[in-house]
Amino acid sequence: MVGGGQLARMTHEAGIPLGVRFKLLSDTPRDSAALVAGEVVVGDHRDLDTLREFARGCDVITFDHEHVPLEHLRALRAEGVAVRPGPEALAHAQDKGVMRARLTELGVPCPRHRLVADPADVTRFAQEGDGYPVILKTVRGGYDGKGVWFVRSEADAAEPFRAGVPVLAEEKVDFRRELAANVVRSPSGQAVAYPVVESVQVAGVCDTVIAPAPDLAPELALRAQELALRVARELDVVGHLAVELFEVAGADGEPAILVNELAMRPHNSGHWTQDGAVTSQFANHVRAVLDLPLGDPRPRARWTVMANVLGGDYPDMYQAYLHCMARDPGLKIHMYGKDVKPGRKVGHVNTYGDELADVRDRARHAAGYLRGTITE
Amino acid sequence: MVGGGQLARMTHEAGIPLGVRFKLLSDTPRDSAALVAGEVVVGDHRDLDTLREFARGCDVITFDHEHVPLEHLRALRAEGVAVRPGPEALAHAQDKGVMRARLTELGVPCPRHRLVADPADVTRFAQEGDGYPVILKTVRGGYDGKGVWFVRSEADAAEPFRAGVPVLAEEKVDFRRELAANVVRSPSGQAVAYPVVESVQVAGVCDTVIAPAPDLAPELALRAQELALRVARELDVVGHLAVELFEVAGADGEPAILVNELAMRPHNSGHWTQDGAVTSQFANHVRAVLDLPLGDPRPRARWTVMANVLGGDYPDMYQAYLHCMARDPGLKIHMYGKDVKPGRKVGHVNTYGDELADVRDRARHAAGYLRGTITE
Repeated sequence: MVGGGQLARMTHEAGIPLGVRFKLLSDTPRDSAALVAGEVVVGDHRDLDTLREFARGCDVITFDHEHVPLEHLRALRAEGVAVRPGPEALAHAQDKGVMRARLTELGVPCPRHRLVADPADVTRFAQEGDGYPVILKTVRGGYDGKGVWFVRSEADAAEPFRAGVPVLAEEKVDFRRELAANVVRSPSGQAVAYPVVESVQVAGVCDTVIAPAPDLAPELALRAQELALRVARELDVVGHLAVELFEVAGADGEPAILVNELAMRPHNSGHWTQDGAVTSQFANHVRAVLDLPLGDPRPRARWTVMANVLGGDYPDMYQAYLHCMARDPGLKIHMYGKDVKPGRKVGHVNTYGDELADVRDRARHAAGYLRGTITE
Repeated sequence: MVGGGQLARMTHEAGIPLGVRFKLLSDTPRDSAALVAGEVVVGDHRDLDTLREFARGCDVITFDHEHVPLEHLRALRAEGVAVRPGPEALAHAQDKGVMRARLTELGVPCPRHRLVADPADVTRFAQEGDGYPVILKTVRGGYDGKGVWFVRSEADAAEPFRAGVPVLAEEKVDFRRELAANVVRSPSGQAVAYPVVESVQVAGVCDTVIAPAPDLAPELALRAQELALRVARELDVVGHLAVELFEVAGADGEPAILVNELAMRPHNSGHWTQDGAVTSQFANHVRAVLDLPLGDPRPRARWTVMANVLGGDYPDMYQAYLHCMARDPGLKIHMYGKDVKPGRKVGHVNTYGDELADVRDRARHAAGYLRGTITE
């Protein structure tokens, strides 16, 4: 796996019972996954020779993030390395312009969008619809709210163009809530769909995920799963695909969905599966990229809630960690081994049970206590 | 953790979400846990200097097996190393004579037993009860049926004495079935009890574990849990304690229990907890030895069955592994990364559900198919 973040850490964890030999390419020996993996190569994922050397002896290489240059992946594949997902699929996760163009071609509902050339062009884009505000995104390199701007006027629109990366304009969607449809697909075409979840964002960062999404019309849930499966197939995704969605009021007033983002790797909206599904997204990602038969994606509990643990003002979470475990013996804690910095994702918690309000309160309490925003 | 077997492998896996830095002392770099752990020291656990060097920088050391000499553990502790469980507790897991003497002193029901000096003494022991057969055990070094003899006559009784290790004689118990009561205890005295399970042995090796033990009288289950908690407290066990039990017909004809063996580490009879309990034995062992609050030991399913995967005649299990995953997407496979040798434990499977017959069939089918004894 290329990339030493928490997704790789949890993928290694999930691969252990499968008997998988896991080798990691990590930026530093202190990265989250590098702390726990058995075989760690420290090197730069942007360097082809490093990738080539790393891939030697691997049956397949897969990714913790979207930052490996596509030309390197094409070169590796030409040399016989199994790259999963492949560069054609990853192009859609790396470049939001490519993603939007392809989804639109497939008839997948998306927010109104187009590439924009400069601030004046942003104003034209706004005027083509309901005017400002407009969302601007650099087509590459964004995550967790980075690379995304909420723009109220042409004067606001200068900043995104400074990076010299193409900029995509999107209408500001008046969504009811955010959902995610997560699927896993293997090279032989087998695919599984997890229940559609609700994802609650705070300041552009995922805060809470509720599985399944409460009060979601069954036919809309099914439509979201079918859409995700179709995108996985059409884009030839191998491994886990997260389709982030907006739930909106459609033209007929009925609930409808629009695709917000795609991620072709295990995803924050799937962390609940570690304790809430028969097979976790990490285990199924491993199974998929190795073309093993996929595991059952069904939920194990009526409700599962995931809450991200962000770093707070205190670097040492140990006392809070003890408190949360003592207060709630059923709490499932997942720490990433990272140094605590304010706002940094350093872990998450999962809770599950029969009563949504209770399950959600437990998860939010633990996450808040670990961050230091709740002290009782 | 000292010892690189599958128990250490699964303990490392369970420590990852807790954010624990796991360091391993392994006999070889190819041991089961050494293949997946982040920090591996290869060395001899019988060598004090190796242990001393290994323990440097560890908050606590704990064990995958019972083979570290007690005098080394006492020396480490005298030097300030936290050794959990401690040598006083481990003495009972290392020496069956010490274990039997202490349990008897505590009034814990055990099979009739005493140390025996030679074959003639075995005959005297037999005559003190119902005669032959008698079980002979070397007091140290046995596991999985090794170091245990079923002796039908004085002529049979010579072999166990050849090792030069004291020999314990025990009556052959006419048991109804074998049970295990598993508990976890922390240094601060917190303890949790898992449901009592039935353990089915084949040729002295654990074959299947059913959780909870079917048709077990609730008052007997409670008595078994209380007994295990009491043994943990009286022997000052820290971490996981497995109390292997015989269920017998008591003097009054009512079911009763006798203690067969103790193990002070995660144990095969607790593997079902990985998929069948809120908190696995491995996670609770880690929590206990680090004196973290313990996790909920309650079951997540009505029934969970564990079946051991033993090596068969074919060294390559890959096709069988694919078949089992494809046949049963809810099957939970746990492979140890070991080379396959006939009869060697190379993994286990867990299944869970509402119908015992179905859950048991699924587990046994998968284990048999992986071994090669079932081919359809």
